[in-house]
Amino acid sequence: MRDTPYARIDVAVLEQNLARMAAYARARGVALRPHAKTHKSPDIAARQLAHGAVGLTVATVAEAEVFAAHGVDDLFIAYPLWLDGPRAARLAGLLTRGLRLRVGVDSVEGVRMLADATADVDRSRLSVAIEVDCGHHRSGIEPHAAGELAQRAHDSGLTVDGVFTFPGQSYTPDGMSEAAMDERRALRVARDSVTAAGLPCPLVSGGSTPTTARDELAVESDDVLTELRPGVYALGDAQQWELGVIEPASIAFGVVTTIVSRRDGEDGAARLIVDAGSKALASDRASWASGYGRVVEHPDARIVALSEHHATIVVPHGAASDLALGERLTVVPNHVCTAVNLVDELVAVGRHGDEELWVVAARGANT
Amino acid sequence: MRDTPYARIDVAVLEQNLARMAAYARARGVALRPHAKTHKSPDIAARQLAHGAVGLTVATVAEAEVFAAHGVDDLFIAYPLWLDGPRAARLAGLLTRGLRLRVGVDSVEGVRMLADATADVDRSRLSVAIEVDCGHHRSGIEPHAAGELAQRAHDSGLTVDGVFTFPGQSYTPDGMSEAAMDERRALRVARDSVTAAGLPCPLVSGGSTPTTARDELAVESDDVLTELRPGVYALGDAQQWELGVIEPASIAFGVVTTIVSRRDGEDGAARLIVDAGSKALASDRASWASGYGRVVEHPDARIVALSEHHATIVVPHGAASDLALGERLTVVPNHVCTAVNLVDELVAVGRHGDEELWVVAARGANT
Repeated sequence: MRDTPYARIDVAVLEQNLARMAAYARARGVALRPHAKTHKSPDIAARQLAHGAVGLTVATVAEAEVFAAHGVDDLFIAYPLWLDGPRAARLAGLLTRGLRLRVGVDSVEGVRMLADATADVDRSRLSVAIEVDCGHHRSGIEPHAAGELAQRAHDSGLTVDGVFTFPGQSYTPDGMSEAAMDERRALRVARDSVTAAGLPCPLVSGGSTPTTARDELAVESDDVLTELRPGVYALGDAQQWELGVIEPASIAFGVVTTIVSRRDGEDGAARLIVDAGSKALASDRASWASGYGRVVEHPDARIVALSEHHATIVVPHGAASDLALGERLTVVPNHVCTAVNLVDELVAVGRHGDEELWVVAARGANT
Repeated sequence: MRDTPYARIDVAVLEQNLARMAAYARARGVALRPHAKTHKSPDIAARQLAHGAVGLTVATVAEAEVFAAHGVDDLFIAYPLWLDGPRAARLAGLLTRGLRLRVGVDSVEGVRMLADATADVDRSRLSVAIEVDCGHHRSGIEPHAAGELAQRAHDSGLTVDGVFTFPGQSYTPDGMSEAAMDERRALRVARDSVTAAGLPCPLVSGGSTPTTARDELAVESDDVLTELRPGVYALGDAQQWELGVIEPASIAFGVVTTIVSRRDGEDGAARLIVDAGSKALASDRASWASGYGRVVEHPDARIVALSEHHATIVVPHGAASDLALGERLTVVPNHVCTAVNLVDELVAVGRHGDEELWVVAARGANT
């Protein structure tokens, strides 16, 4: 018996998710480069690569260092790195390990710093991708400006792979299809801008879990995408559940908790306190979310409040139930990426109940 | 030069905060037992004890284990522990180290399990405190029922120190004074219930930062409280800033970030992306918060969106400013407790710019 709260992975469900997305990418003829920020785990990365992923996506130099140390030899840091301080030498150090490395850029300054940081190392396995904004309005330049920045990178002696974007606006109940269309539109403009500058553009990279995981979003044969970078699909979370992107049965991640306090409401509802709070589930809550996560065993329950070590769960008509103190419930957090980032180990449970501990090796690797 | 993002402590400001709260408790004649879940750091705990704290409050057995290992010999686990599995033996193990340990209970079952778990060890340094609900509706029983549960604990061979509560409803702009009154009212009822059962009740413990940190909440000389358990006061955060509880100049914690992307809006605002997201700041956001934290250098800026590695900062009328790519900004997170829990080390900066690394030894100590 393991003390709660702990983070649990259902390995059989994980494998189904990995196989399904790999088959989807194969069927569409695009490369799959999963975002490792979701799991931060070399064990899951190895399984993704075994299913045919061409490499991994990461967000930071530190994540790249962790996965490189675990033998992953093809990495895309999909982030507009600012290479001052020790980070510049750390990035150059990655190249001396012989891995294939692609780095995001969205500014002339970023291009210059990348060229400077790698001036003294072998750049033959380094490339850049131009980040464009497709409506999420985070990082990324206007798609029509991609060609000019690609030209700058080329002139600085850097190899340009192509363009990428992140359709983060897809994380809303009604935004998924539109975001997928925005993504394609922006990437097409960006690709055409690069080729108009006289440069090849073999890479057109996009894809969040909501815009890639569903068959109805599979697009016409002239789809512009050549690479997908979904992250959450591997494990699933309550956001994807409530968006309708991932069925509850396909969620591989949960936090096992214990009911430590209970009181019944006058309305017949049971009000339960479990021992997982924001330090086990993370506090992410989109405006459209039903609460701070979902309870696997009670889909009608709502997590109405979250403290650091308490979640308050209301079970409608649960007052007469046998939900007793000490019973264990599995909570699916709203956002699996931030929840995984809170633990050092994942308890991976196999088909026969056998358990392994998988290290979250890139936990906190933010720099 | 240190790579961003990193968590920074201003040691001089920290010391001012510790001294101010210690003086406040002394002036009121109450014991101060700071909640260590805020900092999870033995270095800060040692400073709190040096300022006269009687011991520490923690939320879990794992936190107690960490601070006990660092020499703290008086701990209150202010949580209704469910002592099944290895946790029961771990709790008993704490007692064999010779420390003074108080444990929260809010159920007959919890009392029974605590008595069972400690049946074979020396209980002379163990006590319990009855948790009562003062309106936050998390854990805790009705105040008038405290005496009955205290009697059960006493009959089970446990020493009852008294009663405690947490006025978590104080974390709203207009709720602080009322929460402080609710807290006193509930604790008075609970104390009287225990003494009516014929048991002494030397401990009456309460106190969140909003209900303790301000002079205008200092109450009449017959105040019921004998112990305060504030946590956030040591470091401060954007919630306390926006609640008006802590002045910006008294916030000792910040996450140092770099501007990695910028675009200007048509309205004259600058839209900046910095490299600290929910994995560095945590996602906590109360309904009344202005955003996902505050920017020390630009109090008029708002953090309008947060991804895992991006915060989107809008600086009104900032388009013409010199907020350039690569500039560093200090972001104060909404909730310092969850932000500290994301890092392994705090960069503690002294009065002369000297830096020490303080280990967040109880990070992730949730069980």
